[in-house]
Amino acid sequence: MAFRLARLGAGPCWRGARGGGAGLRAGSWRLCRPPGAAGAEPSRGLGLGAAAAAGGGPGRRGAGLAAALAGLAGLAAAAWGHVARAEMVPRSASPPGRPGEKEEDELARRCRGFMAPPVTDLRELRGRPGDMKTQMELLILETQAQVCRALAQVDGGAGFSVDRWERKEGGGGISCVLQDGHVFEKAGVSISVVHGHLSEEAVKQMRNRGKNLKTKDGKLSFSAMGVSSVIHPKNPHAPTIHFNYRYFEVEEADGNKHWWFGGGTDLTPTYLNQEDAVHFHRTLKEACDRHGPDLYPKFKKWCDDYFYIVHRGERRGIGGIFFDDLDSPSKEEVFQFVQSCAQAVVPAYIPLVKKHCNDSFTPQEKLWQQLRRGRYVEFNLLYDRGTKFGLFTPGSRIESILMSLPLTARWEYMHSPSANSKEAEILEVLRHPRDWVH
Amino acid sequence: MAFRLARLGAGPCWRGARGGGAGLRAGSWRLCRPPGAAGAEPSRGLGLGAAAAAGGGPGRRGAGLAAALAGLAGLAAAAWGHVARAEMVPRSASPPGRPGEKEEDELARRCRGFMAPPVTDLRELRGRPGDMKTQMELLILETQAQVCRALAQVDGGAGFSVDRWERKEGGGGISCVLQDGHVFEKAGVSISVVHGHLSEEAVKQMRNRGKNLKTKDGKLSFSAMGVSSVIHPKNPHAPTIHFNYRYFEVEEADGNKHWWFGGGTDLTPTYLNQEDAVHFHRTLKEACDRHGPDLYPKFKKWCDDYFYIVHRGERRGIGGIFFDDLDSPSKEEVFQFVQSCAQAVVPAYIPLVKKHCNDSFTPQEKLWQQLRRGRYVEFNLLYDRGTKFGLFTPGSRIESILMSLPLTARWEYMHSPSANSKEAEILEVLRHPRDWVH
Repeated sequence: MAFRLARLGAGPCWRGARGGGAGLRAGSWRLCRPPGAAGAEPSRGLGLGAAAAAGGGPGRRGAGLAAALAGLAGLAAAAWGHVARAEMVPRSASPPGRPGEKEEDELARRCRGFMAPPVTDLRELRGRPGDMKTQMELLILETQAQVCRALAQVDGGAGFSVDRWERKEGGGGISCVLQDGHVFEKAGVSISVVHGHLSEEAVKQMRNRGKNLKTKDGKLSFSAMGVSSVIHPKNPHAPTIHFNYRYFEVEEADGNKHWWFGGGTDLTPTYLNQEDAVHFHRTLKEACDRHGPDLYPKFKKWCDDYFYIVHRGERRGIGGIFFDDLDSPSKEEVFQFVQSCAQAVVPAYIPLVKKHCNDSFTPQEKLWQQLRRGRYVEFNLLYDRGTKFGLFTPGSRIESILMSLPLTARWEYMHSPSANSKEAEILEVLRHPRDWVH
Repeated sequence: MAFRLARLGAGPCWRGARGGGAGLRAGSWRLCRPPGAAGAEPSRGLGLGAAAAAGGGPGRRGAGLAAALAGLAGLAAAAWGHVARAEMVPRSASPPGRPGEKEEDELARRCRGFMAPPVTDLRELRGRPGDMKTQMELLILETQAQVCRALAQVDGGAGFSVDRWERKEGGGGISCVLQDGHVFEKAGVSISVVHGHLSEEAVKQMRNRGKNLKTKDGKLSFSAMGVSSVIHPKNPHAPTIHFNYRYFEVEEADGNKHWWFGGGTDLTPTYLNQEDAVHFHRTLKEACDRHGPDLYPKFKKWCDDYFYIVHRGERRGIGGIFFDDLDSPSKEEVFQFVQSCAQAVVPAYIPLVKKHCNDSFTPQEKLWQQLRRGRYVEFNLLYDRGTKFGLFTPGSRIESILMSLPLTARWEYMHSPSANSKEAEILEVLRHPRDWVH
């Protein structure tokens, strides 16, 4: 399977408004249903075979609209939960006849498990059950709830605050954040589903990237959605993870449609743990290998290239996979790949947190973690295209974009680890990325 | 006195190399002479009447090369000390005759008071005593030592680390940082003196800003110097200050020279103290008023506009003054103005630190300080043109640029001060800048 990179550019301007949401603890918002409540229920989604995860985190090369959306909403997801549950109830198990009614029942049931009601009106979702946009919105909502549930379980009690917000120009999002918990310093899982018209400037940027899209009155219709997450544990021996998966559609004036996917998963440990790094990369590689032997090497390198803090000469972390503008060989095939990647997030990451969240550590190790948090901030504010696009877009939801920043960070002048220290060991890897799977 | 704004753009690429420096404590570098050693000595500088302070901190509008230099070296200065000492020994007090010998003696004597030897070779400085570049280099060196001395005195014992570095393409700098002291969390005072040829890209950016400068083989000769400082005290009731003053010269292929000054001083308190704000602004206004009644209002507004964190809808602090591209009515007159502004830094700031450095404070107040530090990081990494230009210039001295970042910072999701709190009070001022002097 060979993927081709689309060359579509810059994203939409939106205005994120705080809408009625749902809360899991005091001070947060109304929740459609607490996460976990739907966990034991078998579910059957709309468009079962074509669910996709779409989201944030822009690519330095070829990010564009994907990037924009990523940053704007702090999108991110793991399709894992949805797919796992979908497999439990194969299509053949559905009762025949009255599919409309059945769909309605299933939709209502699934909705109760989300962190907040879907962004799109339920009637609209019911009206286009086979459309990728419907499948994806349900997937990212379900994924969000499942990831939050997994994190809350590990944290041992901390709750997520849930903010459901609306975008004035069309769509909205749901941002879930667990802050200062037992295990996690800050964990954000956010989804967004937006649509409308791209600005003249956005269309111009897309043209610069090789797509001469036909506009009507200077406008271009678009639809985008995704899920994005950054999880910072407290313990310096438990690594930070970032992941996001996203999907875009652009419709020209003559009705001609373009679509593409983007996403990735990457790990940022404070200290190198060889075994963890191998586990993480192997899990991602296995997900990629199901769709072609060239994908992991290609997207592993892309990840190392993208998360490069140029002025430090270091990567942000030990990488993972990163890709953008995937628009071939077919929507279904790329989606299946994206789904596999998203499915790999929880098995790649959660075991590492469970393994290390109770490790003992010294004040020096905590300090080094804080210095690395400073580098994380540097990357996100200076280089991450999605973050920057989001922040510079008037009316975007700043809190959803900046939920990726750690709770605390530190900058020391001329800090330099001593030779042969554990700090020097991870720096060496950040400066010279390794091959973890061969 | 009316100032006109030059429209010159983008800056040089340089490579900052660590050279032999001087240290005030273990781990820092060799020092020409400890600061304070020259304090009691009368001194008489070269080009006494025309000393200038030049430095960092780019303007959002019209910053260009100034901005570039600011960020690259973390430039900044107060001309105060030099001028005060110069006034102690008027020209008429100099012995007549043998001016060359006398100059040599004075130069050597002044040099002993600096944090490190001048960037430019002493023989070259002696060869052009009346040149603004000479006057300025000596001024910023002297200023750096005096500011460091004032800070060390307030801190009550903490020492500055001194790094003297060289720029491969011409010139260099000296970065002095006091970190984790008694009073100061982090205080950096840095100077740089650089020269060489502007890159094709820099010349192009200058053209875009309205200066159609004639190049030779695509190159343009430039010289720039400045002093820049950011001082973060530990106590949340003691404000952060940033200041920088800088001077630039560009020489066209036919020998035609252009010059301009830039600079500013601004305050970032964690909590509003009305009395402090009035004192700070009044001191700066008095310095400006000596050169024209229109200057303070104009540069106060420019400061409020420049230090605007767009995505937050807040200023970084309560302002001060900011200006750039000043190139009229004459070099001498603009310089006199810059000198007055720089002279105002210590009297505007040091009394505030002395007043508050022992104030009692609650953990909540410390937390709010940390959140405001986060905003400081956001401004510096996202908006400050000098910082960004510096970081994106291969080979620039990263540690000198990022010494402006606080030691620690914090980001909480959806933090919002309660109504009528002290936190809400300062936010209101950051959202709606006040007139402090009328």
